[in-house]
Amino acid sequence: MKIWDKGIAVDKKIEQFTVGRDRELDMYLAQFDVQASRAQANMLAGAGLISAAENQQLQQGLQELAAQLEAGTFTIGEDFEDVHSKIESYLTEQYGDAGKKIHTARSRNDQVLTAIQLFLKDYTRRAAVKTLELVEVLLQKAEAHKTDLMPGYTHFQAAMPSSFGLWFSAYAEHLLLDLALFEAAHTMADQNPLGSGAGFGSSFPIDRLQTTQEMGFGNLAVSSVGAQMLRGKTEKTVAFALAGMAATLAKMSYDLVLYNGQDMAFVELPAAFTTGSSIMPHKKNPDVFELIRARCNALQALPNTLILATGNLPSGYHRDFQILKEILFEPMTQFLDILDIVLFALPQLRIKPDLLNQPKYDAVFTVENINQLIQTGTPFRTAYKQVGLAVEDGSYVPHKEFQTTHLGSVHNLGLGEIRAKVARFQAGSHLTKPE
Amino acid sequence: MKIWDKGIAVDKKIEQFTVGRDRELDMYLAQFDVQASRAQANMLAGAGLISAAENQQLQQGLQELAAQLEAGTFTIGEDFEDVHSKIESYLTEQYGDAGKKIHTARSRNDQVLTAIQLFLKDYTRRAAVKTLELVEVLLQKAEAHKTDLMPGYTHFQAAMPSSFGLWFSAYAEHLLLDLALFEAAHTMADQNPLGSGAGFGSSFPIDRLQTTQEMGFGNLAVSSVGAQMLRGKTEKTVAFALAGMAATLAKMSYDLVLYNGQDMAFVELPAAFTTGSSIMPHKKNPDVFELIRARCNALQALPNTLILATGNLPSGYHRDFQILKEILFEPMTQFLDILDIVLFALPQLRIKPDLLNQPKYDAVFTVENINQLIQTGTPFRTAYKQVGLAVEDGSYVPHKEFQTTHLGSVHNLGLGEIRAKVARFQAGSHLTKPE
Amino acid sequence: MKIWDKGIAVDKKIEQFTVGRDRELDMYLAQFDVQASRAQANMLAGAGLISAAENQQLQQGLQELAAQLEAGTFTIGEDFEDVHSKIESYLTEQYGDAGKKIHTARSRNDQVLTAIQLFLKDYTRRAAVKTLELVEVLLQKAEAHKTDLMPGYTHFQAAMPSSFGLWFSAYAEHLLLDLALFEAAHTMADQNPLGSGAGFGSSFPIDRLQTTQEMGFGNLAVSSVGAQMLRGKTEKTVAFALAGMAATLAKMSYDLVLYNGQDMAFVELPAAFTTGSSIMPHKKNPDVFELIRARCNALQALPNTLILATGNLPSGYHRDFQILKEILFEPMTQFLDILDIVLFALPQLRIKPDLLNQPKYDAVFTVENINQLIQTGTPFRTAYKQVGLAVEDGSYVPHKEFQTTHLGSVHNLGLGEIRAKVARFQAGSHLTKPE
Amino acid sequence: MKIWDKGIAVDKKIEQFTVGRDRELDMYLAQFDVQASRAQANMLAGAGLISAAENQQLQQGLQELAAQLEAGTFTIGEDFEDVHSKIESYLTEQYGDAGKKIHTARSRNDQVLTAIQLFLKDYTRRAAVKTLELVEVLLQKAEAHKTDLMPGYTHFQAAMPSSFGLWFSAYAEHLLLDLALFEAAHTMADQNPLGSGAGFGSSFPIDRLQTTQEMGFGNLAVSSVGAQMLRGKTEKTVAFALAGMAATLAKMSYDLVLYNGQDMAFVELPAAFTTGSSIMPHKKNPDVFELIRARCNALQALPNTLILATGNLPSGYHRDFQILKEILFEPMTQFLDILDIVLFALPQLRIKPDLLNQPKYDAVFTVENINQLIQTGTPFRTAYKQVGLAVEDGSYVPHKEFQTTHLGSVHNLGLGEIRAKVARFQAGSHLTKPE
Repeated sequence: MKIWDKGIAVDKKIEQFTVGRDRELDMYLAQFDVQASRAQANMLAGAGLISAAENQQLQQGLQELAAQLEAGTFTIGEDFEDVHSKIESYLTEQYGDAGKKIHTARSRNDQVLTAIQLFLKDYTRRAAVKTLELVEVLLQKAEAHKTDLMPGYTHFQAAMPSSFGLWFSAYAEHLLLDLALFEAAHTMADQNPLGSGAGFGSSFPIDRLQTTQEMGFGNLAVSSVGAQMLRGKTEKTVAFALAGMAATLAKMSYDLVLYNGQDMAFVELPAAFTTGSSIMPHKKNPDVFELIRARCNALQALPNTLILATGNLPSGYHRDFQILKEILFEPMTQFLDILDIVLFALPQLRIKPDLLNQPKYDAVFTVENINQLIQTGTPFRTAYKQVGLAVEDGSYVPHKEFQTTHLGSVHNLGLGEIRAKVARFQAGSHLTKPE
Repeated sequence: MKIWDKGIAVDKKIEQFTVGRDRELDMYLAQFDVQASRAQANMLAGAGLISAAENQQLQQGLQELAAQLEAGTFTIGEDFEDVHSKIESYLTEQYGDAGKKIHTARSRNDQVLTAIQLFLKDYTRRAAVKTLELVEVLLQKAEAHKTDLMPGYTHFQAAMPSSFGLWFSAYAEHLLLDLALFEAAHTMADQNPLGSGAGFGSSFPIDRLQTTQEMGFGNLAVSSVGAQMLRGKTEKTVAFALAGMAATLAKMSYDLVLYNGQDMAFVELPAAFTTGSSIMPHKKNPDVFELIRARCNALQALPNTLILATGNLPSGYHRDFQILKEILFEPMTQFLDILDIVLFALPQLRIKPDLLNQPKYDAVFTVENINQLIQTGTPFRTAYKQVGLAVEDGSYVPHKEFQTTHLGSVHNLGLGEIRAKVARFQAGSHLTKPE
Repeated sequence: MKIWDKGIAVDKKIEQFTVGRDRELDMYLAQFDVQASRAQANMLAGAGLISAAENQQLQQGLQELAAQLEAGTFTIGEDFEDVHSKIESYLTEQYGDAGKKIHTARSRNDQVLTAIQLFLKDYTRRAAVKTLELVEVLLQKAEAHKTDLMPGYTHFQAAMPSSFGLWFSAYAEHLLLDLALFEAAHTMADQNPLGSGAGFGSSFPIDRLQTTQEMGFGNLAVSSVGAQMLRGKTEKTVAFALAGMAATLAKMSYDLVLYNGQDMAFVELPAAFTTGSSIMPHKKNPDVFELIRARCNALQALPNTLILATGNLPSGYHRDFQILKEILFEPMTQFLDILDIVLFALPQLRIKPDLLNQPKYDAVFTVENINQLIQTGTPFRTAYKQVGLAVEDGSYVPHKEFQTTHLGSVHNLGLGEIRAKVARFQAGSHLTKPE
Repeated sequence: MKIWDKGIAVDKKIEQFTVGRDRELDMYLAQFDVQASRAQANMLAGAGLISAAENQQLQQGLQELAAQLEAGTFTIGEDFEDVHSKIESYLTEQYGDAGKKIHTARSRNDQVLTAIQLFLKDYTRRAAVKTLELVEVLLQKAEAHKTDLMPGYTHFQAAMPSSFGLWFSAYAEHLLLDLALFEAAHTMADQNPLGSGAGFGSSFPIDRLQTTQEMGFGNLAVSSVGAQMLRGKTEKTVAFALAGMAATLAKMSYDLVLYNGQDMAFVELPAAFTTGSSIMPHKKNPDVFELIRARCNALQALPNTLILATGNLPSGYHRDFQILKEILFEPMTQFLDILDIVLFALPQLRIKPDLLNQPKYDAVFTVENINQLIQTGTPFRTAYKQVGLAVEDGSYVPHKEFQTTHLGSVHNLGLGEIRAKVARFQAGSHLTKPE
């Protein structure tokens, strides 16, 4: 069924091209289209555009579809070009004229938009939950490894003493920070476009505040022209959020890949996380983290792909927007999978002890030597030169005992302060509030 | 003066390559480096790392530099590789040993980071102020043109009646929404990295909460490793914010460029905003809006450029980060210029009246014809087919009188609701709160 | 079968993540892995590393696999992590020890690389064939519509008289030009990496020139380190080629979408290429060309995605490269589908006649009026001002009769010269030469 | 002087925004605009559109401008919006009516395009010359270091014995390969657009083949519509070429940055190429190569920026194209600077000897141990397991003596074959042929 069918046969080849992967990708949207349709029907009844009896039939039918979705029996067959056709068709088959009226005062454009907004808003919250779990795991690892020193690198050179406590807590703080972009994505998604029709509203006496409230949207996308302009924008903001957090996860993975090599040898990955080589029997390749890195790097390309795919178009709907679904939806799922794998992997990570006992890292203590001189009254620049010359001429003896006191340093990780940041975030964020 | 100079001459060519455009770009950071240095000196004095007298000298010197900046007499000469060398050199020349001590418990890395954080945070607020001005201008234009109808387009085809009221208010709402990404950028920038040194802290007994408070940061970047990881991340988030709002401005400009052509001819741009052709005397080219469009499209490439320039690096400082400044700082300024020009241009925009009287737009009223049939009891699908066939066979007569009632429609723009959204934003945002 | 299996169970979840979609995507490579394996076996026999009898068995087995591929019966089951495991397993099951020896002096790395090089090289040639067909169609349309005038636009404003002859031939020339990037991609793909092992060669006395010749490669990737560095580079160059030509097809589609609207109304798309609206019965939306535009715009993001996914890595193999397949292979197929659809659509495109008779386009003749004045002795700048003032004060009368003579102008399309360019390309390109 | 001036004052602010950095960037184009103007004048005289005397005056004036350019005295003052206005103004001031006639049968559009095509074509050749110099340096280093072994890495793990001979020659081959994209860029640039006017030709009886020949273009961009479509396309192809080669240089720099750290310590960078740390006196940071890496990574973003800046526009000139100059021209210069620095740096690079004597690299010989077993008759899979178990249980003894024979392996670098590839390239490329 193609609802715009005017009796002219559309060539099969063209149809396949235009439908694309909609049937598959629309499964992501089905539950949200059902949710929005229920709100739409209730509102139509409230506005007197359908009868109470018709609304009851529609609610009944939509409830049946929700049950099918719950049970995993809902499918979109070859007869339907998308989930929306499927749902309307079901309602019409089951409930006749009432089914036909669900599309009153609604266009395919605002219908799709509304389902996407609900889906993306839900997604931002689910991603936030998993992220906060990961933050907690990282804080626990930081606590567990707070005395495990490692060289800290700048310019790919061992520079100063650092610790796995600092390393784990750094990623905890950054994942928390990355939620700021999910918050922005949530804000974009939290605008109700329903009732904007094809982007210019309609003359039906609908109540858009009612659907806003019933669907749990925080805001109405007021201008119908503006509501339509959300298409692609919320998607892009979700992509910014994914790209932002993916950068953090890619960096963490890169660290672990490096730390797993023979040259650094700081960590040991559990056997299940490594693979071998087809010709080199000694290899324990960190494939899982390499693939996380690669996928997270590819995720950072997502915003650009979305921007290019539907960029530089004037206002108003264009069919171009259809391909946003195939660009975005699978990587969104992939991203959650990555969070799962990291959640699964990190607790099993083993840290090698006593790394700073290796002579090749002696020079990381030069800053401590300098500080000691400063504390005995030598001006910084003088101390710096003195220690530098000792390193040059080979007379340098590292000052390995050191004690740091400030927040965020080796011996004072400030995990309590970080937990306080987490708590402040949770108190203020829409991502963690119940609807 | 190169503070890491160990007596080995660095080839001139190499020096030029490594210094790059730092002297020029660091002018953006100068006032913030002075601000951070004052907080640093006060904290050092509080921690007993410098004397009260030394601090007084440093505060005096930094006050002098602030005055030079205010007066526009501050410069970074060829003798200095960057603003930080310049400031330290000034303090040392003027105040001797006290000047040398400003670098105590601070590395070039956290010093640069802190100045950048302060600069970017300040920028997000300045951009928000201008944006809110533009939102107001757009709402006023929406009000002024609420009865000016225009065809609403989908698929580049005239589709339904719309209005300039809807059009202007759409952009008002979207610019407001775009501030969500500036809010995220502000969150990233509102983390104090000072005291993290080269990324691994130090053994000095510094008080990082004191500098956090004195500089007005909302948060401490606790883990020193994590503090260093802010480099590039705050920049990228600002770029996301610029890209997001640039997309809105590009779309608005694209609309205006189209509306200015002979085929649509919906608007008249003031003569000062158009240019002519070297061979076609009839042309009034909308160059200003074409250039806004192009620059805003180029701004959408910024996040990707930043991601590529310093992406896929493990944790720790890399010199690669230096080029972030030259990628980001000028486009940031350019973006504010664009906001200024749009603020200047929009009030002068003239709208052509009675656009929907042209017969080529008759068909935009088909939806109204259908709605009328529906309201007399015809089911939607039946009415749709009936009007469709009339258009096909040429018997269609448009139903030009129509009245919309719902929020966000032609005759009910909901400008009050939009203003309420603006007010809610202002109440809840860090961008608009006094420090 | 995982050939690097050392008895340690790899967690199911991890396995799924690391295998990814290899089984599906490797179907693109199967025939090329068979081809390369045949060359490898012949070379091993020639070098005395396997016996002639063993080689005969391997050739037999590989011939069987080729026949399965031809017949469409070849599959990669769940037991195998990729096509390479599957092929080796088949050979070993069928031919015992001979099968095991196919991997002699070969690593998984150079094996995959070789199959990809062969696949991408083959692809560049297939894309070139289709492109040259499309160039021919465009030249035929240019010839057919050489007298159909249209306004030529600059700044989205009707500027000067143009024609569909110029328009069609422009795209013919550009698609031809776009093949220059396919030529570059072919050059990258035409380097034989076989024998480079894991990227550092081996101590086996293999003959790399023999396999180069047998597989039809134009060049040997000599340095084994360099051979490995091809991974990702050939893919990226193919992506540059796709992006380049996609830009041309996107622009053509954009033109057609615009020309299909009521404001311009220059073309009529066949009914089969348009779709309707769910609420507006008068719409004939150019969805096919909008989707071509969107997909071609998304294709322009491909190089960036590839660059990000595996960029900024030092030399040597990284598992990250695996995801190149899933980023690139499907869009490659999609691109050929687009060429097919354009080849199918263009011949059916109908052009509206007499477009320049509409008064709104009168001003496109100002340049002709000026030229006429120049030819009667008026200096250009004087004529320009005179006609410009006439347009301003409404006294302008268009000079609609005009005759152009130069190559590439309305009345002298130079289609012969363009065909000569096509012929010169065909004579000089590796893309069109028989192997 | 603004030639489209019709007496209406354009606001200063707007003018500044629209002129942008044209005066500065047009200096890149000046010599090519002079060259094209000479060809244009000669052709106009040949076609009888100007007199022989007028042509003589124009040639004289253009010769004077060429001399100014040669002498470095040519400037574009504030009175002119671009180089083209400046040149025309000079000719008119010096030679009166003859000067005014230079613009006959030419538009600003084809004039700018022609200068850009000539500039970019010239650039591709200059880049190729420098690249071939660098290829030669790399081949010499490969020869010099052919016995310097190093571990070869996969997955960031030491995997097999490799050598600096293989490493240097890998980059030689890849830079040569990278020229394939410069060849494609040259092809795009080698199309003459002169005479296409504003993109639709003119009714002047001009001879476009004459200017094609006089300017040394290999091809005429025949269709005037197509000629205009070159704008942005040649630029983008140059950007593809820069991005391609930049990836190679970034990878080489990344290798060197890693090899310079304490963990690998494979190379020693001359003191002039390193910088120190403001707080760690032991550091010799590889800043130059980090900055090359960062700049080369940023160059890989160029194609995307160009695609976004002027992408998704229908055919015909748009003012948007103006910003292509500011996006592309400076990075083009920067890229040549990078080639210069690499040419300067590589000969001074010192390689540490005997790297594979370190026990941590023992396992890189496992493949050799396996090969030895194979050559004594053990099947590969059996030998693989045997050596693998020895590594696991600590009984493994490396087989450090090995001899490779195949082309592209440690002991047979095949530098002669690589030089033959260079020679074949030089024989077949337009980049290296005299005009």
